[in-house]
Amino acid sequence: MTPSRTVKFLGQEEATEIDKELFNEYQFSVDQLMELAGLASATAIAKSYPVPANSSDEYRVLVCCGPGNNGGDGLVCARHLQLFGYSPVIFYPKPTDKELYRRLVTQCEKMDIEFVKNAPTSHDNSFHLVVDALFGFSFKPPVRPEFQPIIKFLKDTKIPICSIDIPSGWDVEKGDSDGAGIAPALLVSLTAPKLCAKSFHGPHHWLGGRFVPRALEEKYQLNLPPYPGTDCIVKLPSTFPISDTPK
Amino acid sequence: MTPSRTVKFLGQEEATEIDKELFNEYQFSVDQLMELAGLASATAIAKSYPVPANSSDEYRVLVCCGPGNNGGDGLVCARHLQLFGYSPVIFYPKPTDKELYRRLVTQCEKMDIEFVKNAPTSHDNSFHLVVDALFGFSFKPPVRPEFQPIIKFLKDTKIPICSIDIPSGWDVEKGDSDGAGIAPALLVSLTAPKLCAKSFHGPHHWLGGRFVPRALEEKYQLNLPPYPGTDCIVKLPSTFPISDTPK
Repeated sequence: MTPSRTVKFLGQEEATEIDKELFNEYQFSVDQLMELAGLASATAIAKSYPVPANSSDEYRVLVCCGPGNNGGDGLVCARHLQLFGYSPVIFYPKPTDKELYRRLVTQCEKMDIEFVKNAPTSHDNSFHLVVDALFGFSFKPPVRPEFQPIIKFLKDTKIPICSIDIPSGWDVEKGDSDGAGIAPALLVSLTAPKLCAKSFHGPHHWLGGRFVPRALEEKYQLNLPPYPGTDCIVKLPSTFPISDTPK
Repeated sequence: MTPSRTVKFLGQEEATEIDKELFNEYQFSVDQLMELAGLASATAIAKSYPVPANSSDEYRVLVCCGPGNNGGDGLVCARHLQLFGYSPVIFYPKPTDKELYRRLVTQCEKMDIEFVKNAPTSHDNSFHLVVDALFGFSFKPPVRPEFQPIIKFLKDTKIPICSIDIPSGWDVEKGDSDGAGIAPALLVSLTAPKLCAKSFHGPHHWLGGRFVPRALEEKYQLNLPPYPGTDCIVKLPSTFPISDTPK
């Protein structure tokens, strides 16, 4: 057997360990890596669903943010989406009471990004895209009651869903094992894909988070594909090519 | 007279005011904006001086970092240059004793980026490029004695110099009025160009720092050119086309 050079899919524990090492060993701040993660997410979305040229209509994107770091990535993503010409609207039902998160909210508010109080219903077709930044790789089921309406919306909606790191509600390792979860069209895996990404069948799978030190990559044998030029994202091949859209 | 739509060149006071507003009003953290500024700087360098394809030689870049925020941008830039395939070497004679700066240094050290103790001499030709991240827009002359050797090196060297925000040693407003200063080949203006950029005659003038809120841009009538697609930098036309290299 030749040694595999395909990208590694991380389990929950290994993802947590790598994250800790980035913060403790390499001394990155959450501000830094969240900024790069949110920028990579916005870039993946803009490359997959560009704002039509010469369109005078607003390109509305609902950004659903959860209570943890995944939600923080979403807040940063919303800000960069606005800078890219989109009209993001944020749904952030459980704001985190930490300084960084308060700042991220202020940045969005001062940039006139609208915050909505209520989860949309499946009849709401006023958005072109939905960003799912609810739960990340530390998610453990079940979904708490206050997030059930938004997960229901994500399951029912026909609007394309862009998931940041993990399709929310999925088991981080087993993925959408029973096929009853949300079905994102885009997934941006951060640092390295997690095991659940193997059940991702959407057309747009990106890797983002071009901040992984070479030594860390080697230590965990991540086998990351090379990022082209100065790009902050790289397209990943679909592991299950059933519904893959060739580039 | 028709209203001017050319990009505005900022005076020192106005640059300081905008900076304060980003931090105090919009609540950005230094970590966030420094990360984006350093990334933009590395991107501008990589677009202007790409690592030759299929070259097995190291592409060595000396990154000279000053004691303030400009030096911090340089530390971030060095890290991203390494991720882009360059071999940066850092000269950081007066490390800043603040947590953020200690972290930025640790990140570089742990990523095996070499730090050198002594300023190079003009005979040193072991580098392909030099990044000038010594002084930013808050610089007031004269250059302090400990930075005179590195400024002398930058004046004497034939290696192309890439200046972050301000060519170091130049008057932030009057620029290189007597023609006796350093002569960078690349300038990446951050947020908006400063008045001194009018005396920049090098072939590569970029604008970076795609984080300026629209309201702030309008308040100060910055007239920033649109950034293409998801790019974090945009080429600025040479104000004095004498030595401009057409794109």
